[in-house]
Amino acid sequence: METQVHGWTLGEIAAMVGGELKGPADLRITRVVPAGYDDPSGVTFAESEKYLAKCLSSNVGAVIVQKGHGTVDRPAIYVDSPRAAFGYLLSRFARPLPLASGVHPTAIVSPGANVDSSAAIGAYAVVESGASIGAGSRIYPFAYVGEACTLGEGCIVFPHAVLYQDVVMGARCVVHSGAVLGADGFGFVWDGKKQFKVPQIGGVIIGDDVEFGANTCVDRATCGETMIGRGTKLDNLVQIAHNVTVGEDTVLAAQVGVGGSTSIGDRVSIGGDSAVADHVSIGDGVVIGGRSGVFQDLDEPGEYLGLPPLPIVSAMRVMALQTRLPELFKRLKQLEDEVEALRRNE
Amino acid sequence: METQVHGWTLGEIAAMVGGELKGPADLRITRVVPAGYDDPSGVTFAESEKYLAKCLSSNVGAVIVQKGHGTVDRPAIYVDSPRAAFGYLLSRFARPLPLASGVHPTAIVSPGANVDSSAAIGAYAVVESGASIGAGSRIYPFAYVGEACTLGEGCIVFPHAVLYQDVVMGARCVVHSGAVLGADGFGFVWDGKKQFKVPQIGGVIIGDDVEFGANTCVDRATCGETMIGRGTKLDNLVQIAHNVTVGEDTVLAAQVGVGGSTSIGDRVSIGGDSAVADHVSIGDGVVIGGRSGVFQDLDEPGEYLGLPPLPIVSAMRVMALQTRLPELFKRLKQLEDEVEALRRNE
Amino acid sequence: METQVHGWTLGEIAAMVGGELKGPADLRITRVVPAGYDDPSGVTFAESEKYLAKCLSSNVGAVIVQKGHGTVDRPAIYVDSPRAAFGYLLSRFARPLPLASGVHPTAIVSPGANVDSSAAIGAYAVVESGASIGAGSRIYPFAYVGEACTLGEGCIVFPHAVLYQDVVMGARCVVHSGAVLGADGFGFVWDGKKQFKVPQIGGVIIGDDVEFGANTCVDRATCGETMIGRGTKLDNLVQIAHNVTVGEDTVLAAQVGVGGSTSIGDRVSIGGDSAVADHVSIGDGVVIGGRSGVFQDLDEPGEYLGLPPLPIVSAMRVMALQTRLPELFKRLKQLEDEVEALRRNE
Repeated sequence: METQVHGWTLGEIAAMVGGELKGPADLRITRVVPAGYDDPSGVTFAESEKYLAKCLSSNVGAVIVQKGHGTVDRPAIYVDSPRAAFGYLLSRFARPLPLASGVHPTAIVSPGANVDSSAAIGAYAVVESGASIGAGSRIYPFAYVGEACTLGEGCIVFPHAVLYQDVVMGARCVVHSGAVLGADGFGFVWDGKKQFKVPQIGGVIIGDDVEFGANTCVDRATCGETMIGRGTKLDNLVQIAHNVTVGEDTVLAAQVGVGGSTSIGDRVSIGGDSAVADHVSIGDGVVIGGRSGVFQDLDEPGEYLGLPPLPIVSAMRVMALQTRLPELFKRLKQLEDEVEALRRNE
Repeated sequence: METQVHGWTLGEIAAMVGGELKGPADLRITRVVPAGYDDPSGVTFAESEKYLAKCLSSNVGAVIVQKGHGTVDRPAIYVDSPRAAFGYLLSRFARPLPLASGVHPTAIVSPGANVDSSAAIGAYAVVESGASIGAGSRIYPFAYVGEACTLGEGCIVFPHAVLYQDVVMGARCVVHSGAVLGADGFGFVWDGKKQFKVPQIGGVIIGDDVEFGANTCVDRATCGETMIGRGTKLDNLVQIAHNVTVGEDTVLAAQVGVGGSTSIGDRVSIGGDSAVADHVSIGDGVVIGGRSGVFQDLDEPGEYLGLPPLPIVSAMRVMALQTRLPELFKRLKQLEDEVEALRRNE
Repeated sequence: METQVHGWTLGEIAAMVGGELKGPADLRITRVVPAGYDDPSGVTFAESEKYLAKCLSSNVGAVIVQKGHGTVDRPAIYVDSPRAAFGYLLSRFARPLPLASGVHPTAIVSPGANVDSSAAIGAYAVVESGASIGAGSRIYPFAYVGEACTLGEGCIVFPHAVLYQDVVMGARCVVHSGAVLGADGFGFVWDGKKQFKVPQIGGVIIGDDVEFGANTCVDRATCGETMIGRGTKLDNLVQIAHNVTVGEDTVLAAQVGVGGSTSIGDRVSIGGDSAVADHVSIGDGVVIGGRSGVFQDLDEPGEYLGLPPLPIVSAMRVMALQTRLPELFKRLKQLEDEVEALRRNE
């Protein structure tokens, strides 16, 4: 059973981040906090004077600032990169969700499954036949790891995540609660009498270091595989349809939907609540703003926004002009009247 | 084990709502139904002649009408407020999902958790160390209440809801099935080689009387807390990102998405499927129609619609004019031709 | 315990689909693959020369082609309908998720539930009092079948699906993981002091052959019933609010949202991420493209797109013209200048 982090002294924290301390080394720090939080036991960081002012106007215990910065009216740690030091502190204060080592007695692991001895399987988890769980992986309560699913080393499957069948993932993947990987693709054909269900028998192949947000869905392929490339991150409530291919290091924000057989490249970024139609292709390095809709191929790297997506400057301009449509109609009408008057006077 | 409600006589129902009965007191009523439903054992209500006609054209058993209304060709109960009486009847006919008192033998409650003796914990629920469950709370099967989560009095956590860690909620909160509170915020930074994960170690703080719809996600803060104010109601499939602040008595309809660090005020209403970008502020009393997109601060109370949101009358006008763009282009072309002709004739 | 399909010989497969084989009858086929997949043990199909070229440029083992087609440089099966033969093969290669027959010893089935002896109930499933499970139905691990829910014959409830209470479904329905049927409708009324919760006590009635995608939500009615007609298919992350009526053989793609009391007809198709407001009516045979928004009744059959939805040709035209708004404003300004010049010259 893990216990709560009870913090460190400011001196210990300065040493952790390799910084120079000006202030009491024995000040107890129990929390990392955002700028502006009132917490005398908290430490925060400031990269600009604006943020520093915000920190100093609050009752925070200590602040991490840039090496070379002048004296600060607060216990302070001076470092080369306050942001990096802060990120590192976050990792030190992080507590993994508790999970006892080994296989919990209530977990149901099929004799036909292959669970590494260093993996942890939580209460009421189910691991089906043919499944394989890599070294150091952590399977939380109520997770369902279906038949012939493979998890590499160091994967984390949070409570209530579901892997149907034939879902193969690399190392260090994270599947948040409620995510469903490998459910049937939405394949129905109207046969004149009913919506005929096309059997969905393909798999899902996932690279290393992929993260799936809470309640995100990735469907299995009709046949072949739905693919999510190495290092790609999906936020919550994302929908990936059957036979989609997503490249590497791509980022899909919350509530993005991607239609069937669509291909998304490497290092693509798609903003929240955007929709991508089926059977389109988005090239490497394309950045698409939130709430956009992509219905056609988008191959040229660059920043896009809207429905249809335009280069972002044009998109902002179009959006602004749309709100001026009433003025436009009025001006047009006035011009028509003036031209009519001119014609009468000819 | 609860049993199904078998109803009451019409006389009992008239007494319940403090109304005057015209009709058979011994008529058995087993169901509350909408206007127009054919159910001789059902009771409905009518506030207008239109709805009354709908009721009378159906085979409903009895109708609740306004005191002072003329005779109705159906058993009727006369009350001051038919709508309020109907609402009260709904509550009397409601059956809570069955849940035995006490802790179910299959529930796994950490010895380090603090569960009030009057709380009910269902089959296969998991309550982790440091969690606290208030008096009269009801935790349904498969719920996961993670480490150091705190629930006030009278909370309800429906089957399959997940609270990760450090989720603190007040009294009488309701968490519907599949809702995930406290999953990691979506914090990744491209470091030139990979999407570096910023550790997400903050919490979620929730006031009294908050309701979370099915499959809704509220992420934990990077550090500090994501906050949902007292009395706020979230529908299904809503996304609240890390470090968001939502005020009190606010209503977010289904599929609304709110980006990170955004602040939403009190008594705000946002219609279904709307999106709010990160780092924006929406002021108290702002009402935003469905399918809108908010990319900038919106502080002035009022009703808005669209992308960008405009005051609702303007938004409707712009939307209508957009559909007339083909006409606009045609009129413009014609005018250009006429002006060209005038110039040639000069 | 099911085992993995190990495939058939090409001769056996030709016989299965009633086709004529040109190639080695003893070639082992272990997988059905999409066109273009490199798998010497895979079989695919081609309906056009373009797809055939794609197949032949890959390292696939065999291809199914149209009877009468010329010789193909690959083991081939000649059939009347390559697509139908392929669909049939998909069904033969499909492996249902493993589920032992009978009631798993860890399943908690209320003595007041009625489970057909031929139904299978998985590990850690919960079936509450008054629930009824039809012949041959398969209830997977962690499914929650609530009080007084009724499932017809041959239904499938995947891991982690939740049926709250009073959810009645016909035969052969499929509920994917994370789907939540029967959660409270979103009914709150501002009473001047707080958002008052209108009790939600109605049910959900579902016809035969309905499919619910992963993490889809269908709310119970306030009173009466939310209804989903026979043969209707809902993709993942769909939201159906309280008292909605959806007709028969209708198809709702992923992330579609439907507001309360709305009525959708038969054989309607709504594309991904579209939103339908509350209290509107969509008639039989209406087809709505992705990302549309429906705020008013739409009764005339036809294809629509946009917000508001227009007939698809007009919608495409309007969308294209929107991107030309900057040009439009420029041309208008130029025309105004010219007319002003003409007036000065008069």
